[in-house]
Amino acid sequence: MTGVTHQKWWGWGVEGIAFHHQDKPKMAPFVMDKIGIDLSAPGTPPPDFADIDVPAPRLEPALGEALRAAVGPEHVVLDDLDRVVHTYGKGLPDLVRVRRGDLPRVPDAVVYPADEEQVRAVVDAVVAADAVLIPFGGGSNISGSLTPPPGEERPVVSVDLGLMNKVLEIDADAGLARIQAGALGPDIEDQLTARGWTMGHQPDSFRHSTLGGWVATRSSGMQSDKYGDIADITRGLRLVQPGKVVVLRPLPSTSTGPSVREMVLGSEGRLGVITEVWVNVHRLPANREIIAYLYPSWGAALEAMQEISTADAHPSVTRVSDPNETAFSLATQKASKGLGGKLQAGLFEVLRRRGWDLDKACLSYIGYEGDAAHVRAEKAAVGKIVRAHGGLKLGTGPGALYDQKKFDTPYIRDFLLDIGAHGDVSETAAPWSRLREVYQGTVRAAQAAFAELGVQGFIMCHLSHSYHSGACLYFTFAYPPREGVDELDQYWTVKRAIQQSFLDTGATLSHHHGVGTDHAPWLEADISPAGTDVMVGLLRSVDPGRNLNPGTLLPAHREW
Amino acid sequence: MTGVTHQKWWGWGVEGIAFHHQDKPKMAPFVMDKIGIDLSAPGTPPPDFADIDVPAPRLEPALGEALRAAVGPEHVVLDDLDRVVHTYGKGLPDLVRVRRGDLPRVPDAVVYPADEEQVRAVVDAVVAADAVLIPFGGGSNISGSLTPPPGEERPVVSVDLGLMNKVLEIDADAGLARIQAGALGPDIEDQLTARGWTMGHQPDSFRHSTLGGWVATRSSGMQSDKYGDIADITRGLRLVQPGKVVVLRPLPSTSTGPSVREMVLGSEGRLGVITEVWVNVHRLPANREIIAYLYPSWGAALEAMQEISTADAHPSVTRVSDPNETAFSLATQKASKGLGGKLQAGLFEVLRRRGWDLDKACLSYIGYEGDAAHVRAEKAAVGKIVRAHGGLKLGTGPGALYDQKKFDTPYIRDFLLDIGAHGDVSETAAPWSRLREVYQGTVRAAQAAFAELGVQGFIMCHLSHSYHSGACLYFTFAYPPREGVDELDQYWTVKRAIQQSFLDTGATLSHHHGVGTDHAPWLEADISPAGTDVMVGLLRSVDPGRNLNPGTLLPAHREW
Repeated sequence: MTGVTHQKWWGWGVEGIAFHHQDKPKMAPFVMDKIGIDLSAPGTPPPDFADIDVPAPRLEPALGEALRAAVGPEHVVLDDLDRVVHTYGKGLPDLVRVRRGDLPRVPDAVVYPADEEQVRAVVDAVVAADAVLIPFGGGSNISGSLTPPPGEERPVVSVDLGLMNKVLEIDADAGLARIQAGALGPDIEDQLTARGWTMGHQPDSFRHSTLGGWVATRSSGMQSDKYGDIADITRGLRLVQPGKVVVLRPLPSTSTGPSVREMVLGSEGRLGVITEVWVNVHRLPANREIIAYLYPSWGAALEAMQEISTADAHPSVTRVSDPNETAFSLATQKASKGLGGKLQAGLFEVLRRRGWDLDKACLSYIGYEGDAAHVRAEKAAVGKIVRAHGGLKLGTGPGALYDQKKFDTPYIRDFLLDIGAHGDVSETAAPWSRLREVYQGTVRAAQAAFAELGVQGFIMCHLSHSYHSGACLYFTFAYPPREGVDELDQYWTVKRAIQQSFLDTGATLSHHHGVGTDHAPWLEADISPAGTDVMVGLLRSVDPGRNLNPGTLLPAHREW
Repeated sequence: MTGVTHQKWWGWGVEGIAFHHQDKPKMAPFVMDKIGIDLSAPGTPPPDFADIDVPAPRLEPALGEALRAAVGPEHVVLDDLDRVVHTYGKGLPDLVRVRRGDLPRVPDAVVYPADEEQVRAVVDAVVAADAVLIPFGGGSNISGSLTPPPGEERPVVSVDLGLMNKVLEIDADAGLARIQAGALGPDIEDQLTARGWTMGHQPDSFRHSTLGGWVATRSSGMQSDKYGDIADITRGLRLVQPGKVVVLRPLPSTSTGPSVREMVLGSEGRLGVITEVWVNVHRLPANREIIAYLYPSWGAALEAMQEISTADAHPSVTRVSDPNETAFSLATQKASKGLGGKLQAGLFEVLRRRGWDLDKACLSYIGYEGDAAHVRAEKAAVGKIVRAHGGLKLGTGPGALYDQKKFDTPYIRDFLLDIGAHGDVSETAAPWSRLREVYQGTVRAAQAAFAELGVQGFIMCHLSHSYHSGACLYFTFAYPPREGVDELDQYWTVKRAIQQSFLDTGATLSHHHGVGTDHAPWLEADISPAGTDVMVGLLRSVDPGRNLNPGTLLPAHREW
């Protein structure tokens, strides 16, 4: 036993926790209406692991011996279950393939180093054997960064950082903490809050993703407007490469040429294994509130969000859902929670009388943190902007509910798969001047893809992560794939249409999910062919033998 | 005539503008006291250009022909004066060498492309001829990035971007502007403010440095606490490389792997020639105030600055001088300005009675921007912190004066050289927890170097650019070199001691002046040998022939 717990081999989160609709009375009619699926019909539960045919490990004895010498025999695992857990992330294609037992290439061993010395020994052993090394954090990746290339003939070793989960040091004077890369979100916040600190980084994946994974994929959290994206939060780090360690000391800012820190950020394992990270940490705020607002339209909501982003106010969370996502949120409320049945009915009746078209209403959450006077001033400043755009304050009740439920969303992917539907996400960022076009283009592209497939699809969106010059748009889509046609082909038809629309409208291939293999086909369109050359040159110079997570980041035709 | 104006060949700024002490009655006694130099003694004016022996250009005819074809014959300049202007930056060693006529290697031609097409033609011609290309903006560099390697046998072409000085486009909706890389600070702000916008980037060098230079060296401005360092301000760019152009579209944030944008930032010409940059721009603030404060000690000042940086307030400028720099500021006031003679005397008398040791007082400037209510709230929040640390508000008068004089400092280097003294700067950044040690270590290191040389030296410092986890410390030092010993050897004794102290105390080799050749010896100590390997690999992959500004960024023993 390694002592490291993993997510379900077939889905998100841990055994025993799942998304249910029985306590959400409006959900079944909503799903029937939007994608024509009957939630009361019997679903297809995930398969039994005993029915899965797992290829035997192909670990050369010498490499196995070297790995056992590196981390101890108990930390070199060749079990089928552990190897399958380390084969995929949790994107829709990952889940479809693993439920199918589609396992063309499974890691041949999973190793669990306990410290950086052991990571060094593992990296050196793998490279000496000309094998392949894939770093693994919480396994929450949804862009295909964790899967061995199907045709990889060399041994593949998954390096699970799960034992390296400690906050090693807090520099209280500087507001910095040194934390091991394998620490999950709760590991980090539990250790920090016990001492009065927070890192403030809250991606959807928080419970099942690690600091190293956040750095390796350029993660963002829900509170990034205040705390920054992981690229801002990361002030120093250690990265193990074959025979050496890149050491970047914690610095608030520096002028040391091309930023090696910003090369490690987003490197998805291709430059080495991150072992520890110096991050900004903050004293727990005296006050913290999330307030819900309602706007009469998406256009008004976008205008208000932009105005807030350039105002003197500095909220910690800025999020607004489009009408579809607003309807979804209302339909997935528990009977007794949220806006409440009667309260909501009453409010909506009042709004209707005022001339609102409630099918166009957009639900927004804005977060405030700081001392009482600051929170009051910020709320007043934001409230003024909200009202100027016809918006309405709903209060802290729905905001608190959002705050409690915020990490539950990824479970819905499995819930939909059980009932025979696909659900997945694509997110992007673009300048404010492009956002409407990005939004409309993406919705149109998804609808065209649904039409091409002949399926009843649904796409919804929220804006989050506001910057001076633009924002992130986060799309969620769902549809029931047709029978008789390969379901992954159908998925890629939709996903490709959305990604292509991003690039066609001036947006990026991803704001915070990384490149992986799924988004790599759009890399050249995003950073230009010459920019891709720069990246290829960098990766190749560090890893000429393609031992470090080969196949991720670059489009297939650019792998050397 | 190319139409591009340059700084003096022998010093900072343009002909006719210089630093004087005659209108600053306290300065001569101050300088006599601190470095034993008599300002009334006759100085040594800069040499006559006619006395300078300039090596003839070694431009192969074919390359000359290709360059003339690329930019037009009138934009290929082989004049001695123009070539000398493009030989050095404006650091102390640059000025000493150029005044001496020490010109071991002068560019063989200066070319002035008018647009990106011409830049591409120049880059291709230079690389095809296996010559060397050095991009040139305003020539304000002070870390040795602009000087051809002394032993360079290949032709050297300086590419002056001075004709490319336009704001090409303002995206008012997104708060972005597309600006040519050769635009100087005033070019940019004049074009922006005419339309109600500002970029807010104000380095000391503002009048004589360019956008491309800022990006290539990771510049910071005095208002970076609000507007960000240039790395934050830069949202997209175009970079000409041999045979191609890296195009990074403007994006508020992105998750496209290792950041190519952050590789171009700080690249000092080694990855190509930056031709245009998308930057964040802001509406001119409704109100703008800079307020001066006085603290009873450096310790109290540092504590207050740190508290301000983690408070809910967001000032635009945060700066505080140590007691030496405070004394220097008071000594260089014009008789009728600043705190004023009588007013200051009265104030100081009151403070003395309150128990202040005025030799330990520290002068601070804090800037506020925004709507009236916001400025009022920020001032109240900061004022409370200042008072809690024993500080005193002096008001807007001295703040306004600082704002007017803020770009004049670099002229002092020439003023001191004229009277036979050296003056230069070294700046760094470190976590708050290290700042006292960095400060004390640096002062001690400089004093030890002065003692070793047997000179009467002076070192002063200010803190600027506050971040969550740390700040920049900016040191200025001066001393009269001894006769009979090479004066550059003496300079390097002091400069090396300061830089080594930075690295020994956990600070970086530079916060915003770049690496160049002067700081390159500390690169491995800063980003680790393995981090340096990553950088070497990147540069080598882009420029295997070492045609692009070779010799900068990397320590000599790491050039390939």
